[in-house]
Amino acid sequence: MANSPSGDSVIGRVVRILDTFSADRTVQTASDIGRRAGIPVSTAHRLVDELVTAGVLERDDEHRVRLGMRLWELALRGSTALRLRQAALPHMEAVQAAIREHTQLAVLEQGEALFLERLSHPDAGANITRVAGRLPLHASSSGLILLAHADPAVRDRILSQPLRPLGPGTVTDAATLGRRLREIRRSGVVIAPGSIEAVSTGVAVPIRDAGSVIAALSIVLPRDADPAPAVSALQSAATRIEADLKFSFPIQ
Amino acid sequence: MANSPSGDSVIGRVVRILDTFSADRTVQTASDIGRRAGIPVSTAHRLVDELVTAGVLERDDEHRVRLGMRLWELALRGSTALRLRQAALPHMEAVQAAIREHTQLAVLEQGEALFLERLSHPDAGANITRVAGRLPLHASSSGLILLAHADPAVRDRILSQPLRPLGPGTVTDAATLGRRLREIRRSGVVIAPGSIEAVSTGVAVPIRDAGSVIAALSIVLPRDADPAPAVSALQSAATRIEADLKFSFPIQ
Repeated sequence: MANSPSGDSVIGRVVRILDTFSADRTVQTASDIGRRAGIPVSTAHRLVDELVTAGVLERDDEHRVRLGMRLWELALRGSTALRLRQAALPHMEAVQAAIREHTQLAVLEQGEALFLERLSHPDAGANITRVAGRLPLHASSSGLILLAHADPAVRDRILSQPLRPLGPGTVTDAATLGRRLREIRRSGVVIAPGSIEAVSTGVAVPIRDAGSVIAALSIVLPRDADPAPAVSALQSAATRIEADLKFSFPIQ
Repeated sequence: MANSPSGDSVIGRVVRILDTFSADRTVQTASDIGRRAGIPVSTAHRLVDELVTAGVLERDDEHRVRLGMRLWELALRGSTALRLRQAALPHMEAVQAAIREHTQLAVLEQGEALFLERLSHPDAGANITRVAGRLPLHASSSGLILLAHADPAVRDRILSQPLRPLGPGTVTDAATLGRRLREIRRSGVVIAPGSIEAVSTGVAVPIRDAGSVIAALSIVLPRDADPAPAVSALQSAATRIEADLKFSFPIQ
């Protein structure tokens, strides 16, 4: 019932439709969506109509569609992401007030670092992370924290793949990265100069819940800044977030 | 293809499944979901399996499911809600730093005020709003701003329905509410003592984009606080948010 003749489920197609939207592409026609999602145009039009009826997409006066507020509500209202982010936000604000640079919260999702929150100081430098954006685990400071504490199967998979350089400081040798991850587990902190951008240093620490690392908290500093105050602010914030999580609910 | 024999589309059922999750119910079994969504248990199990495969839901060790990080990513990455919220957040932080009470951002969604963001000061008083939560338009200060500037058809519908009291100060008489809305359009501000909770006063102002009111920015004050500093902080923040929106993209 739910499958097309090709065996492609309606749910799979809807996910592919939603996946065509991005920070740089917030409005599209149904035909464009079909083409980008690899769905026949007539099917795309019918599914888009149904998604508009359900409020998942919203249509404008020019018959183009965008992601609906209703989808935002359904995705957030009961989500672990929202509860983790709400627990972290006040402490991220304290970090930002002290260090005055970009402050991020990330989780491990499908082999990448997915950013749940980013606070940006008006005077802060370059930073490519975006809320709901992703970065490779081996290159971003948050990703290195998440990778160091990931399931060994995830670690083995990442280490067996080509490690693409994003910046001049990205570790691209698997043996070196493996040693680096052991060192991160021992020290509890990542300091990654130039790993993504030559002009920046990522600093990150883990956030634990019930003993497991569930997220990474990070700051992007100018390359020449002393990382010590950032490490201290992040560690203090992580401790407070962990305490608040203990009184709220288990994340995993 | 996408419809069950009852004419209920897969998309409609998926929305009903997602709608069973809430801030107080983040983990459920497929059977519970089916019962709450009014979907036969066998169908619910099959749809939940498909949603887990797609990453929209995540399954835990006890075979219960929760909303997935992938759903959060798909809903936010290209969303108007995220871009509006990102434009507003730094200015909401400034309001909160000055007034030290709850600061909220809301939009009109399906005849209610839907809250996109809430910043809470540790010392702030009672406040029932939640991120991704809703409040009635006629009772909340944000809702009154949104209702005053809503499409006349939305206003007529709300004014023709029973206006349920939420607090001792809720306006429940349609003629009085109609006059109040005209006054709000004239003054550009809502000050609503006891409209939701007897101990609080909601204060709200509109945020405009391309001439239209697209959101409301609000503060919840203790009932006996002077609202003047809050009004001034909100108006100044709204002006700055509107300026930032002008340089980003049209919201509607």
